[in-house]
Amino acid sequence: MDLLLTNGTVVTMNREREVLVGADVLVQDGRIARVGRNLRTRGAGLRVLDVRGKVVLPGLIHGHLHACQTLFRNRADGLELLDWLRERIWPFEAAHDADSMRASADLTFAELIRSGATAALDMGTVRHYDAVFESARDCGFRLTGGKAMMDAPDGPEGLRESTEDSLAESLALLERWHGTHGDRLRYAFAPRFVLSCTERLMREVARLARERSVRIHTHASENPTEVEVVRERTGQDNVTYFHEVGFTGPHVTLAHCVWLSEEEQRLLRDTRTVVCHCPGSNLKLASGIARVPELLEAGVTVCLGADGAPCNNNLDMFLEMRLAALLHKPRVGPRAMPASQVLEMATLGGARALGLESELGSLEAGKRADLTVVDLSGLHVTPSSPEDVLGPLVYAARASDVVHVLIDGRLVLKDRVLLTLDEASVATSARQHAERLTARVR
Amino acid sequence: MDLLLTNGTVVTMNREREVLVGADVLVQDGRIARVGRNLRTRGAGLRVLDVRGKVVLPGLIHGHLHACQTLFRNRADGLELLDWLRERIWPFEAAHDADSMRASADLTFAELIRSGATAALDMGTVRHYDAVFESARDCGFRLTGGKAMMDAPDGPEGLRESTEDSLAESLALLERWHGTHGDRLRYAFAPRFVLSCTERLMREVARLARERSVRIHTHASENPTEVEVVRERTGQDNVTYFHEVGFTGPHVTLAHCVWLSEEEQRLLRDTRTVVCHCPGSNLKLASGIARVPELLEAGVTVCLGADGAPCNNNLDMFLEMRLAALLHKPRVGPRAMPASQVLEMATLGGARALGLESELGSLEAGKRADLTVVDLSGLHVTPSSPEDVLGPLVYAARASDVVHVLIDGRLVLKDRVLLTLDEASVATSARQHAERLTARVR
Repeated sequence: MDLLLTNGTVVTMNREREVLVGADVLVQDGRIARVGRNLRTRGAGLRVLDVRGKVVLPGLIHGHLHACQTLFRNRADGLELLDWLRERIWPFEAAHDADSMRASADLTFAELIRSGATAALDMGTVRHYDAVFESARDCGFRLTGGKAMMDAPDGPEGLRESTEDSLAESLALLERWHGTHGDRLRYAFAPRFVLSCTERLMREVARLARERSVRIHTHASENPTEVEVVRERTGQDNVTYFHEVGFTGPHVTLAHCVWLSEEEQRLLRDTRTVVCHCPGSNLKLASGIARVPELLEAGVTVCLGADGAPCNNNLDMFLEMRLAALLHKPRVGPRAMPASQVLEMATLGGARALGLESELGSLEAGKRADLTVVDLSGLHVTPSSPEDVLGPLVYAARASDVVHVLIDGRLVLKDRVLLTLDEASVATSARQHAERLTARVR
Repeated sequence: MDLLLTNGTVVTMNREREVLVGADVLVQDGRIARVGRNLRTRGAGLRVLDVRGKVVLPGLIHGHLHACQTLFRNRADGLELLDWLRERIWPFEAAHDADSMRASADLTFAELIRSGATAALDMGTVRHYDAVFESARDCGFRLTGGKAMMDAPDGPEGLRESTEDSLAESLALLERWHGTHGDRLRYAFAPRFVLSCTERLMREVARLARERSVRIHTHASENPTEVEVVRERTGQDNVTYFHEVGFTGPHVTLAHCVWLSEEEQRLLRDTRTVVCHCPGSNLKLASGIARVPELLEAGVTVCLGADGAPCNNNLDMFLEMRLAALLHKPRVGPRAMPASQVLEMATLGGARALGLESELGSLEAGKRADLTVVDLSGLHVTPSSPEDVLGPLVYAARASDVVHVLIDGRLVLKDRVLLTLDEASVATSARQHAERLTARVR
């Protein structure tokens, strides 16, 4: 059904970065047909949604996420990356079955939609990734994801797999899901990180990704110890090594990149590799603070992501935007990371992280109708003016201000109510499966 | 009317830090009469509030706030402290009249109550502070506050005052408000900061504060430039100088303390001076990151505060708690600032910032009935267990999860609805007065 949103303050994120006050957005066949004033047209099957006084912005996009970990929320505080993985996350992941994966994914997409996110680049655990695609298929979320690949011989019990199995299962998932449901579901190879993968696997993933035109999604240079071990093992810095095995390029998204040499920063820029900044996670795991202003200044594409619930503990782009805007100022200055730049990371940057910049990230005719409507009239945002909404969106608004969400032209949240997921049963199922998982791990 | 809260998860913050699951809190005559299981007693005039499945915690307390600045929210982004003051905040403050001050205070207390705060230590602008007390009087908020004192001869036009006027007006406010309304409203001298005050004023305030047994509330060592100018002007570090003029002691609250020498840190500990950590504000104004783990380790009392809306841009203790828990970990380690310590800063620490640690900050028989009920069942907090609520409260919960708030035994928020302020008219009035203020400043 076609939809006309009327009388909103439309943050287009188009080339001119226009913000149109009192404007309409016409959605037809899942795409944005027109953006402008007085679009009111009469037509059969045209539904009108009055968004007067509210802000319409491109759907927010997480460039790095682990939907499979959402059930482990609040169960892994106070640990550094490698301990956090070994002591909590890997045992929990190994204990997943298909049903608990589905519960974790349902909880994830419900939380994401309620907080204004419409798409994500997701990394699973080693098995049961069909359940994540099935969840996104059913709730209408836009997912680019893939199973974690972990073929290192010293990998954790319960997750370690052979190189052949890792590649075969990845390709089978790719065949089943990539480009399905109107291209809303897409595959991305997800070799976990250098320390989890053999070089043979990485080189083969690099080759397959180019051959199949799918993305590579991995972690790089998150933690000083990780960087040191990578250097010992490969004789190179993490990103330099990735470049050698073929893990750079516009089709590659590297999460974190906290610890980079100048040479690695240049490599990221020259190869147009996408970096995902995860400020909440980097703080919680004591990883460090990525030099995002310098990366942006150098021309590197940077997006934002919440990472996993156990290292955050939310999946909330409003929190990540606020943090990204605030965190770098003491080091770089108060004009660092203005609201406009942060919002760009959360929209156009995220679109690039998915390789979908021609389809997503701005409200322009022809693009997919993924959009979020936010109410800036709450006390905690007051006073704000319709002429200047970017600062209020980034510094003052919160997830609970999200009112409506459309993905592919379909309303998935209306008046703060989820339409494609039953919130109460999602929460109940999450609690039950989290308890069972915890029991299996003990 | 007496009130029994039943079946909650009660975070007592008592000496043993007990968290009682399925417990009741009996409120009588504005105080907590009993905390425990199965308190259900029949009595005339006993109202019962079932808080099953929810968390009851001591009301959150901001140790540093500027209610007069809330109308300037979203109007001062991208500036460092001294520019932010000179270019925006002081001109706005000078443009206040009594009506705009009242509108700003109403907006402040409405936002604070909705986000679970029950008390604050507030600094006004130079004039019209009666309006802030009147607002707190009418809505039931617990306020310790005072007019800003700014008698430096090079002070900003429109705010600069004589030493005599500054002292006289402060004393007049103290006489009118201190200890009134069941001691819910209390006065605190508020000399703005070293650079706004003559030494004569500071020494006289130090004397009067001891004589009248009221608190001193000021700023210290927020920004490197400020610290440098203080050093040039006084020949001493900021806190060392404050110690000399009499601005240290358990009756003094110093906001920020980002830039301290070891000697100053020792002085704060030895004099039992209270420090207010304002992580959101310190990031936004590019001030720096206070060494809070070291201060706590040294035994300094540290509380939390949102500071002013234009440097934050919220007044939300959940955001400050989350930030305080996350921000120090990259430097100090993932076990720094555990949830229990952060919650202590926001409750018992805040009580000490008001000099009311025998009255507030924990849920124990005999203390004032200031408490906040939080719903941790939202998707963004799920899964969590009633046995471990501190992590979820600090890392995952948000202001919109606050359901009920009591101050002095009086329900001021029930089922997320303000009972003592009309939310719509508070917002409307704030918008109108903000526009008029902006027009007056231009």
